[in-house]
Amino acid sequence: MDVPLHEQIAADLRRRISSGELPVGAAVPSESQLCTQWNASRGPVRQALTALRAEGMIGGGRGKPPVVRRQALSQPFETFLSFSRWVHGLGRTPGQRTLEVARRPATAELADELDLDEGDPVVQVLRLRFIDETPTMIERTTFVEPVGRLLYDYDCDSGSIYAYLGEQGVDMSNARHLMDAVAADATDSELLGIDVGSPLLRERRRATGLDGRPVEYSDDRYRPDLVSFAIENSQRAQPAFARNWRSAS
Amino acid sequence: MDVPLHEQIAADLRRRISSGELPVGAAVPSESQLCTQWNASRGPVRQALTALRAEGMIGGGRGKPPVVRRQALSQPFETFLSFSRWVHGLGRTPGQRTLEVARRPATAELADELDLDEGDPVVQVLRLRFIDETPTMIERTTFVEPVGRLLYDYDCDSGSIYAYLGEQGVDMSNARHLMDAVAADATDSELLGIDVGSPLLRERRRATGLDGRPVEYSDDRYRPDLVSFAIENSQRAQPAFARNWRSAS
Repeated sequence: MDVPLHEQIAADLRRRISSGELPVGAAVPSESQLCTQWNASRGPVRQALTALRAEGMIGGGRGKPPVVRRQALSQPFETFLSFSRWVHGLGRTPGQRTLEVARRPATAELADELDLDEGDPVVQVLRLRFIDETPTMIERTTFVEPVGRLLYDYDCDSGSIYAYLGEQGVDMSNARHLMDAVAADATDSELLGIDVGSPLLRERRRATGLDGRPVEYSDDRYRPDLVSFAIENSQRAQPAFARNWRSAS
Repeated sequence: MDVPLHEQIAADLRRRISSGELPVGAAVPSESQLCTQWNASRGPVRQALTALRAEGMIGGGRGKPPVVRRQALSQPFETFLSFSRWVHGLGRTPGQRTLEVARRPATAELADELDLDEGDPVVQVLRLRFIDETPTMIERTTFVEPVGRLLYDYDCDSGSIYAYLGEQGVDMSNARHLMDAVAADATDSELLGIDVGSPLLRERRRATGLDGRPVEYSDDRYRPDLVSFAIENSQRAQPAFARNWRSAS
């Protein structure tokens, strides 16, 4: 066996946490349970738990049994791009209501983001996104015209635009996400059922193909009491990040 | 020479952008300028520019000269942890005003984050941070007591707490950053000179040592018109992220 036992134990625990078998807040199996399960001594079990603790996946006070802190250290690229796929991965039900699919001339700002000239046609989609029927996010997405025109034949209320565009052969291999905060405007307020001026977590996303050509630019606004973004970094390992959800209280 | 010419050209441009020699918004040297500088043909120059475009470091419309979009694709771990070091890297002047250094019993929430028991002593620092004398961020940082007590002998107005703690041998090898948005409270409002309720970009950070033991937990609130966080990901490469700054308008 090439993989040391402590790494096998750690990998199995990561899998159980990522799958939701061990949800956030759940007690991590005790050392003696893990020793029995793996027919292992305390050494590798403690090594595995130390690794997960260092990754921030589990935590807990001194002398208290450790609990799960986070769903996943890192989420696959597609999950981070697609709201629908992310919510499915949480074991929840994604939903969407399309307010608008419009062909418009690009503004100067959008032209700059999409490497177009001002006035070039773009296709814009405004959708309200749900998790388990709770309005959670508003997406204002602009596609370059050759991609956006594919949406004229698609029911944007039916599910994931990204899955559909992927099936159509659209290449969105790279994405840049800019996180900041904005005050809810009248549209945000009405659709999310919050006060005008309430703080929203904004993700501005620019997706490009392998060749670096922009495909879409989006302004997504999340209710910050429901969604946050996590970044993990260390002096040793590659950074990882995840979109986190907590259910409405 | 092991490194292909187009990679050398790309690396040099990245260095010039990261150092601020080519700031955000600046025109990228033209193809013919780069050909002359490198005594190269158009091929490798175009390859280098395509790579930077794919990384999102440069952009611009068709037929328009490309401009610099971002300062850096990824920032070193220390830069992401330390506000002072990050601001120095921007070629700007970091500043701080310490409002409070206090020893307190840990609340239940802090005890959970720091793997302590409720009521265990912690050391809390409240500082207003500046970039070029503009109030930009408020940090509310809580240290475990053995680390925090080192600050009793340190002037928190004098510079980077992280640099100081590092010199004292404190190990902060890992960090998790949770990004969301909050409304400015009375303290935020007064210190940052903004309205109560204004949206702020919040970073909650938990730093741990190599052994996974928590060292600090911080609630940092940024003016979102000045600072954003960027995440880059792709199907091919490791994710990268950066803290971005734009000067007050």
